[in-house]
Amino acid sequence: MSDFVCGVNPVKESLLHSQRQLLELWVTKEKLNPRQKEIVSLAEEKQLKIRHVDRRDIQRLAGMTPHQGVLLKVAAFNYANLDDVIDSWQHSGEKAFFLLLDGITDPHNFGAMLRSAELAGCQAVIVAKDRSCPVTAVVEKTAAGALAYLPLCQVVNLARTMEDLKKIGVWCYGLAGDEGSADLFEADLVGHVAMIVGSEGRGLRQNIRNHCDALLAIPMRGQLDSLNASVATGIALFEVMKQNRA
Amino acid sequence: MSDFVCGVNPVKESLLHSQRQLLELWVTKEKLNPRQKEIVSLAEEKQLKIRHVDRRDIQRLAGMTPHQGVLLKVAAFNYANLDDVIDSWQHSGEKAFFLLLDGITDPHNFGAMLRSAELAGCQAVIVAKDRSCPVTAVVEKTAAGALAYLPLCQVVNLARTMEDLKKIGVWCYGLAGDEGSADLFEADLVGHVAMIVGSEGRGLRQNIRNHCDALLAIPMRGQLDSLNASVATGIALFEVMKQNRA
Repeated sequence: MSDFVCGVNPVKESLLHSQRQLLELWVTKEKLNPRQKEIVSLAEEKQLKIRHVDRRDIQRLAGMTPHQGVLLKVAAFNYANLDDVIDSWQHSGEKAFFLLLDGITDPHNFGAMLRSAELAGCQAVIVAKDRSCPVTAVVEKTAAGALAYLPLCQVVNLARTMEDLKKIGVWCYGLAGDEGSADLFEADLVGHVAMIVGSEGRGLRQNIRNHCDALLAIPMRGQLDSLNASVATGIALFEVMKQNRA
Repeated sequence: MSDFVCGVNPVKESLLHSQRQLLELWVTKEKLNPRQKEIVSLAEEKQLKIRHVDRRDIQRLAGMTPHQGVLLKVAAFNYANLDDVIDSWQHSGEKAFFLLLDGITDPHNFGAMLRSAELAGCQAVIVAKDRSCPVTAVVEKTAAGALAYLPLCQVVNLARTMEDLKKIGVWCYGLAGDEGSADLFEADLVGHVAMIVGSEGRGLRQNIRNHCDALLAIPMRGQLDSLNASVATGIALFEVMKQNRA
């Protein structure tokens, strides 16, 4: 299995920062511009196989994504198995601490959340398969190496995963901003915790809210509506960490 | 006084999102490519004055910044006067709460910090003049409107500003990551607070540390070195807010 990235900037980022195995570079057989040449040089430095192909061949793989005549094949991201993660937690004797993401689409936010989750001591991050930003080079760079330590799991049905976690004693808290949510800083978060965060624009879907044990909100004093999603997630994760440290 | 932005993406961002007055668009008099044409259309929609000029004229203003044949003049950002901000706080009867930034260079981080500061109830953000990212369209967009409510001040000498604040009863806390810093969550932060945050890569400079009343660190449980700067700042600001709310 392989993934690909295309376009001058994404390919350059991947060549410089991806932690995944780089497979081969496809570049147009037309005359190269300076930025395409730079990418070829980077690939040569890494002794990567380079194929000069018809622009149409790149087009066919890239589909709707702008490719600018360059496409890099990389090994598929290796998601962790959720059963293994849960098994490993249950044998650890530690309090459970999972971050569940439902529909984060901005790679900078996704990466920063992975970084925060690793540093707050989460055992894993779990994302909904059809509602998540893929693990791109931008995500890997923004995560600052977190994916080397933190298992990332993908599930088909996040609500079902929440029910499974609840059955084994994990409390599911939804980070919502609404009236009626409990104040994050006054909630008792001691115990086995899964923090569920919704998408940047719309927050938690109703179906996911219905499966939460409680909804939490960060109290605000300003005029704006909401914090940046990765900042809000960081505040919530470190509140859980603080309450649960020995 | 005016500022300018140049390059296809920055100009497009500014046309779409800047809260500042847009003055005029300069575009090369050569044949336009589709992205340059899109920018001209956007400027026309906004009934902006458009000048078709020699590429050299754009080059002369843009200097070392890549311009791709487009340059947009915008009104200079209107920094707040620090004396006015302090005067306004002293007449408010509220606890002081300032965020001081020493060398934040990433516009996404800068914008997210402004957003967090507004929502945590800061009275102003203060940046060091020669060590700060300018207020670009990316900053304005990431700040999500915070600059409409939150005064932003620029000072020549941040250490002197810290001394001035200390003289009027404001405690200066440096957000540092080092051994020997106090645990953010165990520190008593009730009172008049200035939180000082250093640059993304290097943290607080020694000179700034020397002027702090105390250094604080967010306790970490993972393997990575540090949080994203805007996430760390958000956690610190909301800890201050939590401790100081009525």
